Amino acid sequence: MNPVISTNPATGAVRTLDVFESSAEDVRRHCAAAHVAADDLARRPLAWRSALLRGIADELERDATVLIAIADDETALGVPRLTGELRRTAYQFRFFANVVDDGAFLDATIDHATDSPMGPLPDLRRMRTPLGVVGVFGSSNFPFAFSVPGGDTASALAAGCAVVVKAHPAHPATSAACFEAMTRAARASGAADGSIALIFGLDAGVALVEAPEVAAVGFTGSVAAGRALWERANARTTPIPFFGELGAANPLVITELAASERGGEIGTGLAGSMTLGVGQFCTKPGLHFVPSGPSGDAVVAAMVETLNDLGSMTMLSTGIASHFRDGSAAIEATPGVTTLVGHDHDDDAHATARLYEVGAAHFASSAGAALRDECFGPVAVVVRFDSPGQLRDALAHSDPALTFSVFTGDDDPDGSWLVATAAAHAGRVILNGFPTGVGVSWSMHHGGPWPSTTVPAATSVGASAIERWLRPVAYQSVPDELLPPALREDNVLAIPRRIDGVMTLR
Amino acid sequence: MNPVISTNPATGAVRTLDVFESSAEDVRRHCAAAHVAADDLARRPLAWRSALLRGIADELERDATVLIAIADDETALGVPRLTGELRRTAYQFRFFANVVDDGAFLDATIDHATDSPMGPLPDLRRMRTPLGVVGVFGSSNFPFAFSVPGGDTASALAAGCAVVVKAHPAHPATSAACFEAMTRAARASGAADGSIALIFGLDAGVALVEAPEVAAVGFTGSVAAGRALWERANARTTPIPFFGELGAANPLVITELAASERGGEIGTGLAGSMTLGVGQFCTKPGLHFVPSGPSGDAVVAAMVETLNDLGSMTMLSTGIASHFRDGSAAIEATPGVTTLVGHDHDDDAHATARLYEVGAAHFASSAGAALRDECFGPVAVVVRFDSPGQLRDALAHSDPALTFSVFTGDDDPDGSWLVATAAAHAGRVILNGFPTGVGVSWSMHHGGPWPSTTVPAATSVGASAIERWLRPVAYQSVPDELLPPALREDNVLAIPRRIDGVMTLR
Repeated sequence: MNPVISTNPATGAVRTLDVFESSAEDVRRHCAAAHVAADDLARRPLAWRSALLRGIADELERDATVLIAIADDETALGVPRLTGELRRTAYQFRFFANVVDDGAFLDATIDHATDSPMGPLPDLRRMRTPLGVVGVFGSSNFPFAFSVPGGDTASALAAGCAVVVKAHPAHPATSAACFEAMTRAARASGAADGSIALIFGLDAGVALVEAPEVAAVGFTGSVAAGRALWERANARTTPIPFFGELGAANPLVITELAASERGGEIGTGLAGSMTLGVGQFCTKPGLHFVPSGPSGDAVVAAMVETLNDLGSMTMLSTGIASHFRDGSAAIEATPGVTTLVGHDHDDDAHATARLYEVGAAHFASSAGAALRDECFGPVAVVVRFDSPGQLRDALAHSDPALTFSVFTGDDDPDGSWLVATAAAHAGRVILNGFPTGVGVSWSMHHGGPWPSTTVPAATSVGASAIERWLRPVAYQSVPDELLPPALREDNVLAIPRRIDGVMTLR
Repeated sequence: MNPVISTNPATGAVRTLDVFESSAEDVRRHCAAAHVAADDLARRPLAWRSALLRGIADELERDATVLIAIADDETALGVPRLTGELRRTAYQFRFFANVVDDGAFLDATIDHATDSPMGPLPDLRRMRTPLGVVGVFGSSNFPFAFSVPGGDTASALAAGCAVVVKAHPAHPATSAACFEAMTRAARASGAADGSIALIFGLDAGVALVEAPEVAAVGFTGSVAAGRALWERANARTTPIPFFGELGAANPLVITELAASERGGEIGTGLAGSMTLGVGQFCTKPGLHFVPSGPSGDAVVAAMVETLNDLGSMTMLSTGIASHFRDGSAAIEATPGVTTLVGHDHDDDAHATARLYEVGAAHFASSAGAALRDECFGPVAVVVRFDSPGQLRDALAHSDPALTFSVFTGDDDPDGSWLVATAAAHAGRVILNGFPTGVGVSWSMHHGGPWPSTTVPAATSVGASAIERWLRPVAYQSVPDELLPPALREDNVLAIPRRIDGVMTLR
């Protein structure tokens, strides 16, 4: 049995935790228990389920000081950021409690028996039902909000599913500590043992995707790991949906008018956005389309100045820092690319910001993978364009993404086509703002066309994230006493329902 | 160039049509035109889109007499059935016109800028946007309702997508004639050329799944063909969603109480349901769980009597009839199986009903693929059980399915657990009725866990079928004049929207 190792990326210090990498037998046992627990969870009233979610939020906040300290030790993200992230994480559980109480996610629909041009139609009622056991792969970059107590876990529990989480190796102690807080809440609510489980280790992760009890997977992480697990999910005897959020080199466009009106301000903000969390955001703007000429020069000058002032930062792990250096080197080696900000003295988990520049014509004619793909870390590529036409060509050579940001000026003639282009390229369009923040809300969509996510219609943040863990079931001619409460003739749950084609609120 | 051949399965007569199998270049051309047309379709107002759908319904009905005659010649399904199916097909277009007018399918959601426990949140609005070009593979068994003018085409056009349909080789003349009527409607509405296209041939179908312009595929057909195309969709450089409805051996349970109260009546009805359309329904009940003893014997006796009276029927093609004979032979060869109804004199496209019986203990212990899988055609397997416990074991060995039917008696103690089991196994649960009819309605769900469909959460019939062809886009801080009409501050489209967390009707 291999013990799990926790590393402090700032100091390189390692410590051996009191847990071990999960064996294949461990994974089997957890999944079997989760399968039994899922039946129990699915049968619980919505009010019980929302209370469980609020209980988890409370327990996470109760342990906040300890959790933040452990996470800072493992991630070097800093106490202020981690304090905010834990607040967001607790909020996310409470938000999904509201989504559960609201009940619209059940999509309850009732058609009474009727005549139709196709002849008589029987009574038919439909609602969404939980899938069962959900496997979750936490990401490295948000040790709370996208990890063990993250959005995938919260939305899957909200859907009435049991969850088996594979801990990210960059913060195993944080994972274990969060899991302990969540388990307290689950026990207090009377949830069946196995409703939430935690496993460790690469092999255990593969076993999780292949476990027969697992009905769906939520994943946040790299393209390479995500693609490999997606293929395993498809290669199963019973393939399962794999909701992978794999990141992207999110484009950001600054029009000539925007640059001329406030180029310096945008440049400074952009440097901040691309280095937020040491550039380790899946929504980091990585491709900046900036006009040629003096207005654009002012944008770039402000970026360069801000980036040069930042100094050395600590990344999440030496492995991630090493990928960052390799990716930056590949950009630098692409013909036509010049280095605006770059350093040779990065080592171990330490990194300094990097910024590269390339002409739009060059980008469009030879855009290699290094320029199009996401490079995790504080690095970006500035693409300079001479005209809206050249910008349009260059954008056609950028990959689909999670986000697409557009900075415009007053009455900007380029606003309209850029917003349309952005909507065609990405899951979220941001006007005159930075994409790095991803609010938990009813209208959030955090997902985008392949390769940014494996299921472009799905989101991993916001109310709709719950839909990934549900499938509809229709009940034909089933009498009231045998129907699930959401579909009984009396609206006992007081939820929105569509009845005979007409939406009703409650 | 290979000309397309139309075959009359009843007589074996063949005729050469005035169309050719589509070349790779044809497919490329159609997909390129569809890509341009999709942009136009996506920009059209909802009212224009619903008028297009109603126009298609009208044109199909205008040609009804001719269409039904051509289809009867190619499918031998008979004029009454085809008349009903064409009526359903026209109704389906009008139903999706209503779904478009209703506007709820856009899932429009608005969160105004606000403060939150995570800090200030910007204005964020989300709606669903069409995917672009949809490839559709029509099925053999419904030459109208699940083919060229079928539910996939109707729902994709309703979503604002362009459609390229691959004609089924069992009814190419019907496909061409339907396409002509639809094209008239599309032209009359001013739709761009390429909004709807039709291609012929196996190779063209593969090219369609692999065409870079195609953003999603709808498929209704066999497990073998569906799995092969699903794999191609996943193997693309940019994988695309593949919504395959592959059919199932839909279980049907008759409890002891139901059999004792009205066994003969159920048996007669069941024989009719399993042979409806010569058993060529994806919802055909193929696995009948019937109690041992005299009550169950009465069910079986009624089935046998009805099936023996049916005589020879014509299947859709010699190929399908040959598969039916092979599948029946595999069931017959399974150890423990006895033949209740069976004939040796089937030939060409002609078939007679077949019924087999096996004990529940035997089914559970050795259920081979032949007993679990769908066998297309007028054949079913009766599984006899001695007790509810033995029934439960046997059901655990049946595969997930599109439908699961349960016949119960008065105050039946087995009703509750059987409905729960059914909901866990299938996409539609039918109580005291047969699963073969699939009404077009708001609450229909026609889909089920793998292997019955490739995307268990998706339906190919009913209002929700439109959701397959859409993905959400969120707009952050985008001013009113740059927002799509559905998301503007004024509810100009008068559609249901969720605003600041609260559902509003219009």
